[in-house]
Amino acid sequence: MSTTTPSADAPVPEGDWRPRLDALRGSIDNLDAALVHILAERFRATRQVGALKATHGLPPADPGREQRQIERLQQLCDDAGLDGDLATRVMRMIIDQVIRDHERIAEERAAHEA
Amino acid sequence: MSTTTPSADAPVPEGDWRPRLDALRGSIDNLDAALVHILAERFRATRQVGALKATHGLPPADPGREQRQIERLQQLCDDAGLDGDLATRVMRMIIDQVIRDHERIAEERAAHEA
Repeated sequence: MSTTTPSADAPVPEGDWRPRLDALRGSIDNLDAALVHILAERFRATRQVGALKATHGLPPADPGREQRQIERLQQLCDDAGLDGDLATRVMRMIIDQVIRDHERIAEERAAHEA
Repeated sequence: MSTTTPSADAPVPEGDWRPRLDALRGSIDNLDAALVHILAERFRATRQVGALKATHGLPPADPGREQRQIERLQQLCDDAGLDGDLATRVMRMIIDQVIRDHERIAEERAAHEA
C-alpha cells in the first residue's frame, strides 16, 4: 500500500505551519502599530511636560521621578510576566530621549526670549 | 496700592504648575502601563512563533521578515509623528530579545528530544 506520510527527515510541508505563522505575525504587526501609537501619545504628553518645565524654569531631568517610574515599571512587568530587564532598558532609552527633548525645548525657549 | 504680583526673578509658585504637571504625569503612567501590557502580549505571540519554528525546524531568525517589520515601523512612525530612529532602536532591542527566545526554545526542544 502506498502512503503519503513523509519520512522523519523530510521537510515539513509549508501548509502545516504557514497559516498559523501568518496569523501570529498578523497579531504581532497589530501590536506593533499599537505600541507606536501609544509611544507617540506618550511623547505628546512629555513634550507638554517639557514646555511646562521651560515656562516655569524647572530642570529638564527629575531623577526622583525617573527612579519611581523604573520601579513602577518593574512591578508592572512582574505582574504581566514580562522580562523586567528588557523593559527597563527600553524605558531608559525613552526617558533619555525625553530629557534631550526637554533640554531642546528649554534652549529654544531661552533663545526666543533672549 | 499693594500688589501680590511676583517679580520676574521670583520663583513661580508651585500652585501654578504642579496640578498640570501631575495630570500629565498621570497620563504618562497610564500610557506606560499600556506599553508594558501590549509588549507582554507581543512576547506571548512571539513565544508561540518560537514554538512553531522549533516544532517545524525553521530558523530562529528571519532577516527578510525583520527588515519588513523595521520598514513598516518607519512608515507607522512617520504617520504618527514619532522619531523613527528611537522606534527603530527600541524595536531592534525587542527583536534581538525575541531571536534569543526562539534560540532558547529550539535548544530546549532539542534537549528534550535528545
